[in-house]
Amino acid sequence: MDPRTGLPVVGMVGAGQLARMTHQAAIPLGQSLRVLAESPQDGAALVAADVVIGTHTSYEDLLAFAAGCDVLTFDHEHVPTELIRSLAEAGHAVYPGADALVHAQDKAVLREALVQAGIPGPSWSRVSTVDHLVAFGAQHGWPVVLKVARGGYDGRGVWFLSESAAASHVLDGDRAYIVEQRVPILRELAVLVARSPYGQVSVWPIVQTVQRDGICVEVIAPAPELSEEVAGVAATLAVRLAAELGVVGVMAVELFETGHGLLVNELAMRPHNSGHWTIEGSRTSQFEQHLRAVLDYPLGTTTMTAPWVVMANLLGGPDGGMGIDERAHHAMAQWPDVKLHLYGKSSRPGRKLGHVTALGSDLAEVRARAQAAVSYLHQGGHP
Amino acid sequence: MDPRTGLPVVGMVGAGQLARMTHQAAIPLGQSLRVLAESPQDGAALVAADVVIGTHTSYEDLLAFAAGCDVLTFDHEHVPTELIRSLAEAGHAVYPGADALVHAQDKAVLREALVQAGIPGPSWSRVSTVDHLVAFGAQHGWPVVLKVARGGYDGRGVWFLSESAAASHVLDGDRAYIVEQRVPILRELAVLVARSPYGQVSVWPIVQTVQRDGICVEVIAPAPELSEEVAGVAATLAVRLAAELGVVGVMAVELFETGHGLLVNELAMRPHNSGHWTIEGSRTSQFEQHLRAVLDYPLGTTTMTAPWVVMANLLGGPDGGMGIDERAHHAMAQWPDVKLHLYGKSSRPGRKLGHVTALGSDLAEVRARAQAAVSYLHQGGHP
Repeated sequence: MDPRTGLPVVGMVGAGQLARMTHQAAIPLGQSLRVLAESPQDGAALVAADVVIGTHTSYEDLLAFAAGCDVLTFDHEHVPTELIRSLAEAGHAVYPGADALVHAQDKAVLREALVQAGIPGPSWSRVSTVDHLVAFGAQHGWPVVLKVARGGYDGRGVWFLSESAAASHVLDGDRAYIVEQRVPILRELAVLVARSPYGQVSVWPIVQTVQRDGICVEVIAPAPELSEEVAGVAATLAVRLAAELGVVGVMAVELFETGHGLLVNELAMRPHNSGHWTIEGSRTSQFEQHLRAVLDYPLGTTTMTAPWVVMANLLGGPDGGMGIDERAHHAMAQWPDVKLHLYGKSSRPGRKLGHVTALGSDLAEVRARAQAAVSYLHQGGHP
Repeated sequence: MDPRTGLPVVGMVGAGQLARMTHQAAIPLGQSLRVLAESPQDGAALVAADVVIGTHTSYEDLLAFAAGCDVLTFDHEHVPTELIRSLAEAGHAVYPGADALVHAQDKAVLREALVQAGIPGPSWSRVSTVDHLVAFGAQHGWPVVLKVARGGYDGRGVWFLSESAAASHVLDGDRAYIVEQRVPILRELAVLVARSPYGQVSVWPIVQTVQRDGICVEVIAPAPELSEEVAGVAATLAVRLAAELGVVGVMAVELFETGHGLLVNELAMRPHNSGHWTIEGSRTSQFEQHLRAVLDYPLGTTTMTAPWVVMANLLGGPDGGMGIDERAHHAMAQWPDVKLHLYGKSSRPGRKLGHVTALGSDLAEVRARAQAAVSYLHQGGHP
């Protein structure tokens, strides 16, 4: 409990843009997010009052950080499960707990849990040799999708392999892999759900996510032309999964929509890129909801604030010779109704530097507006 | 320019709730508000990364604070004009500047400017003796309103005086006073306007403010049953005043609606309590707009996000034996669609501890919801 405010203290391990936006949401709740940052330059470390420098793989650092917090939560899924268990055994409230979080850390563990729960996913197998990989492809068809079980993200640690590429692929003997059937998909969807320790659950409208080179570039809320039936299936699936895995906080379930129903692709147990639209687009943002959930506060309404909300990621680009200040200036002049979010990061090609959100009643117009604004910010000029 | 982000640095003198909410709005702009706080316990000092402890009446402190900023602005109007002038002469960008800000500091200067601009206000006079006060009342009718020219707020420094009370009132020879005619008013309105150094101006819809004991307790946006004509007069008046006074940043113009039109009551040149509703209720909040204005960025859209938005102030109260954490918990359970804003302050009766915002399409329901939530938070139970 913070004696200055009479409110519990939330500590977030990791200080990237998710922690940065969580701190923003913490302020109206009377909170000030405590962050464990790798570096004082981390996005959240630039804006939060209570920053501890340390490493998420050091138990010593984690324990020292936890000492000032009533609840611990995460900006990413990279804290080793055994350290989370040790923190819990030392009496710290950690949300999500290790037994839940492992499903967002290890794709093999997730696939096993989905099979056990009867929740559909692509055909899959653990794989440790090229022979096994080739046999899986022979059974399920080519190409296949090879994934490191742990540590991949934004397209890294994922390979789409033809038969000949599979036969010559080199598996790292120190890593665990899974192989999945490459299913023909209509599009990708995501369901965002929040769950409190008490067991209260809330769901936002199902969204469509658009990827490019394995990186999310656009999120459309709600997913266009999604039948009520499929939306209901997706929401029910996410709520059930959150309860079965014992999730506390926000969980994003990435789904494939196929001609034969929905398949679970991946999970994230934290605020997620597919939910950034909720900052302006929902009465309660995913960041506020994550805080409410880990604090075991009652959850907020997830009603949308506009018929259509589109979020577009700002990736580092050529910049057109202009600094971000000048590009932001121009974008604000041209699109006074597009909301800009900058993460305080230096630019590198392909790096997520921020995002924009547009809202309105005409989907085509809203998408075009978000894309035009983010394209200008990315390129420093029109394409 | 912050070398870490490539963006200019805004410094705010004062670290109360206005600075706290401005920091919240600064985060998505890629900014981190630098605040000059009296104490590390100040509301904004609890949440901002870049806090300097100092006094706003010390030129030394102001100058040291300004050294790290590209633009200086204010959480309050208490910085002496001559210090602002010295900062500007030393080459610092200070918004609003001294020539504008003095109108929010000194009620006599404001009244003179309004007379000169032909903008209506109540009849008034500078007053320095009881004889003068009594003569004013004899001419304009009793009671009269006596105000200290500088430093009064939230009902302090304001007296409603009958003839007998005026005759025995003691004027402090060290202070300047004005006396105003007490006009019969229908209600109080406020217009919020933002202006950039370039001269771009934006206005939010006119709101109704409800006061109790001289303190704002509720703001209704837009002001109910306000004719388009009167709304237009109010907006035009505010835009014209902002331009004539050379305001940069947000300015709130408090108005009396009377049977004979609108009269200007007071000004504030900063984000203002009458604009807290804009955080959720407008596409661009007053805090974001203030930052955009002082940074000379193009201003954002001020479209409302719902037909009706009601803000109710949370004042310190009896608390019903519950801490704020428990009261917030209960309020969130009962009103999942009311947005809570806590300022990180300890409770004292009558102190502004936070506010709530409710939105919707039925004004009576929205008002009732906001009032019920704030009443629960205030009393720790239903009345």
